[in-house]
Amino acid sequence: MFQDFILVGDRPISIQVKEYVKRLIIKGALQADQKLPSTREMSGLLKVGRNTVISAYEGLEDDGFTYTISGKGCYVASKVNHLALDNGGASWQIDWKERMNEYAISAVELDLMKQGIRAPKGTISFTSIAPDEQLFDLSDVRRAFMDRMAIEGQVLLNYGYAKGYKPLIDYLMHYMENKGVDISGKDMLITSGFTEGFDMVLSALRPSTRRGAAICENPTHHTALKNLKLQGFEITGIPMDRDGIHVERLENILQTNSFDVAYLMPSYHNPTGIVMSPEKRISVMKLMMRYQIPVIEDGFNEELRYSGAHVAPLIATAGQGNGVIYIGSFSKVLFPGLRVGWVLGDRTLIDSLESIKRSRTIHTSTIDQSILYQYLLNGNFDKYIKKARTEYKRKYELTKACCEKHIPEAQLSGDGGLHVFLTFPSDVNTHQLLEACTEQGVIFTPGDRFFIQKGEGINTLRLGFSRVTDENIEQGIQIIGKQVREFLKS
Amino acid sequence: MFQDFILVGDRPISIQVKEYVKRLIIKGALQADQKLPSTREMSGLLKVGRNTVISAYEGLEDDGFTYTISGKGCYVASKVNHLALDNGGASWQIDWKERMNEYAISAVELDLMKQGIRAPKGTISFTSIAPDEQLFDLSDVRRAFMDRMAIEGQVLLNYGYAKGYKPLIDYLMHYMENKGVDISGKDMLITSGFTEGFDMVLSALRPSTRRGAAICENPTHHTALKNLKLQGFEITGIPMDRDGIHVERLENILQTNSFDVAYLMPSYHNPTGIVMSPEKRISVMKLMMRYQIPVIEDGFNEELRYSGAHVAPLIATAGQGNGVIYIGSFSKVLFPGLRVGWVLGDRTLIDSLESIKRSRTIHTSTIDQSILYQYLLNGNFDKYIKKARTEYKRKYELTKACCEKHIPEAQLSGDGGLHVFLTFPSDVNTHQLLEACTEQGVIFTPGDRFFIQKGEGINTLRLGFSRVTDENIEQGIQIIGKQVREFLKS
Repeated sequence: MFQDFILVGDRPISIQVKEYVKRLIIKGALQADQKLPSTREMSGLLKVGRNTVISAYEGLEDDGFTYTISGKGCYVASKVNHLALDNGGASWQIDWKERMNEYAISAVELDLMKQGIRAPKGTISFTSIAPDEQLFDLSDVRRAFMDRMAIEGQVLLNYGYAKGYKPLIDYLMHYMENKGVDISGKDMLITSGFTEGFDMVLSALRPSTRRGAAICENPTHHTALKNLKLQGFEITGIPMDRDGIHVERLENILQTNSFDVAYLMPSYHNPTGIVMSPEKRISVMKLMMRYQIPVIEDGFNEELRYSGAHVAPLIATAGQGNGVIYIGSFSKVLFPGLRVGWVLGDRTLIDSLESIKRSRTIHTSTIDQSILYQYLLNGNFDKYIKKARTEYKRKYELTKACCEKHIPEAQLSGDGGLHVFLTFPSDVNTHQLLEACTEQGVIFTPGDRFFIQKGEGINTLRLGFSRVTDENIEQGIQIIGKQVREFLKS
Repeated sequence: MFQDFILVGDRPISIQVKEYVKRLIIKGALQADQKLPSTREMSGLLKVGRNTVISAYEGLEDDGFTYTISGKGCYVASKVNHLALDNGGASWQIDWKERMNEYAISAVELDLMKQGIRAPKGTISFTSIAPDEQLFDLSDVRRAFMDRMAIEGQVLLNYGYAKGYKPLIDYLMHYMENKGVDISGKDMLITSGFTEGFDMVLSALRPSTRRGAAICENPTHHTALKNLKLQGFEITGIPMDRDGIHVERLENILQTNSFDVAYLMPSYHNPTGIVMSPEKRISVMKLMMRYQIPVIEDGFNEELRYSGAHVAPLIATAGQGNGVIYIGSFSKVLFPGLRVGWVLGDRTLIDSLESIKRSRTIHTSTIDQSILYQYLLNGNFDKYIKKARTEYKRKYELTKACCEKHIPEAQLSGDGGLHVFLTFPSDVNTHQLLEACTEQGVIFTPGDRFFIQKGEGINTLRLGFSRVTDENIEQGIQIIGKQVREFLKS
């Protein structure tokens, strides 16, 4: 015994010894009331210092795995070789598949990550629209954390509030005011990113006695579609025009149908990349006001605007009206690893969402919130976004130029952001195109997953360029273009 | 104009100037195409350096709030004084109260924080069972963060995985093995604390076509009761015995009723503080196996055990059986601000929960997960828990002694942990007692909120001692005792 002890480099040795002995006890290799080797013997057996063994033995006793008889030594505690069910419980097999309800089954079915496009290493991937981590200013993040910990470390590590970290809420309220939002009568809830905010809003507004009805742009963000479906909403989609949602179509539908909620993404719309024009924003909002439809505005990437004048979010155009729920996040522009988003809306609504938030996760990580707050306060965001805009703008223009040169068959949309959207003649099936391109070492996201009805958008695709090198952008798009022509020939 | 600019100490000045001018533009004090003062003039007006103004003006243009005419100066962009709905949108008023569904209404009604016991500063409060933040080893936490950031900072800040941070999962699987769990056929999902794990498990197991049926200890954790109710479960409670749930009563109920799920908290049960004996664990698990009821085991505070031999969690007794879902968290023993918990259970179940997790919050904060991982790896947890156990044990014994001395009328339960539970003769109403004590500057948690039926446990209360000083423990309990006697006299 004690021959198979192997030291791992990066952990305190006494803990490794403690856990090693614990395992022997758990496995039954050491029996109840059996005497452990003396600390001196064990030190020789494991080839570690005697003080290390002494400390490990203390830990074993603290954890209730051993007891000491004064002057005699250390013994295995009797209850550790714990009781177990007959035949080791093996007969207790629940068929979990059968126990899952519709919600759980749908969550799996609608989980695109589980049907993800897997590709070998070295593949040029246009599937991501996450930020380029090479741009991250790690030293500023480290400093933000250290600054905040120095100010109130103990507070940060104990319970926070469901509503969010107060300094961050104050900061973001001011931030939204600077985008022209009238914050009177409004309040804010901090969430674990956009997705949590969206899911909670839907779960609060979903009618209790019938399926909900939602209206949105078509195509739209596939995660939003997933959440709408999981919350039981029927979804009506309105096609996109060059400058945003098709207003006449929207009006026609609104005249005859009623909706519980509208979901809109006015800036760098995912997947088309279109920024809704200021005039169209007003037209859309007038319709929503006339038909009294609550609007969930997805603030997606509006910080990434890198050309033209400031465009106010929808919630700003509503002024003192309380019909818009704005959900923001810095995930895509800043650090997705920091799970922080916010919901800004009517005070009554936020009050309910706060209780839902508390019932689901107590509160969002205070560490994440406080790092973000201090990072913003230190002025790092302004510096970072300047750098990021410049870099993404350059990549956007390169991507656009490459598409125009190598894939002239496709119509490109996208005013910036982190992706462009391509629409091919209707006989190009982008799933088949993807298959051909994968073989050539290039992958992208087929566009149909952003459409509401199965079979729509089968001739579209999204190219995310944020994490692709210049060289690969050029090369990858050239390969796609070549495959498109192969495809059209056949 | 420009007279009301006030510098705040802790932010970069150029950003303060930028935001100040932005506000003037948003408010309409500066009109479209109006020329801003030259950088030299502005520098004089605001009494800040000229380079600061130059940098602020650049920022304004980057954000699309101004444009520059070469050789002439900087002008307000035309679209910033954004369009707004007629009469400022004020006529768009949605009655959010009316739009809320049952779930949202119940979430507010069941939100105890909204009916919280408020007390003036200086009150001795026994309401919290959060850890004492004075025990936190901030320097170890800081080091864990810096260590991890140095190793893979860019990875930590970009998207992680719904299932969790791989090194942490591996660590915790091993950790659970060291508690005697057979991990074959099992898998783990990292969540934002216990509550998220519990809520997701319930939402996956709640029957689609009828109300679910749950069985649990009575009293039990009020947050768990809330989540069960919000997910539409009917709850059957089984009374507590001195060493845990009353097994005969449990068996009687199981013979005649069927349940979709059992919720059990075998260690430092909240609120009674009881640790279920090893023999009882086996009896309970045999029943659950016989009736094939999935068990959700709340690992609450089992790390805090500070006397007696190691007691294996229920999931360990089940061996290769897959009927137990263990939900763990370090929140109460370590840092509640780090929102990290884990669900350990059958692989099929975890696979579904992973998709639900992704649909709700994408993933748990990677920063939180990686700090916890590195903190554990560095051996800090072992050191901390030793210190915490010693301190809480001391406080527990003090609290117990004080209760025996000053409140002999109450029967005390609680084997350690962070709280004790008092049961009074049936004519003591602890809500009325609380009112009297509040006037004397002492508050506690009335016990009825932990019971399933309204009106049960009206003669009980919970005393959390983790964050109360020795002096206040003594003094506070003395005051409660005095009020009890006043109460019994009247």
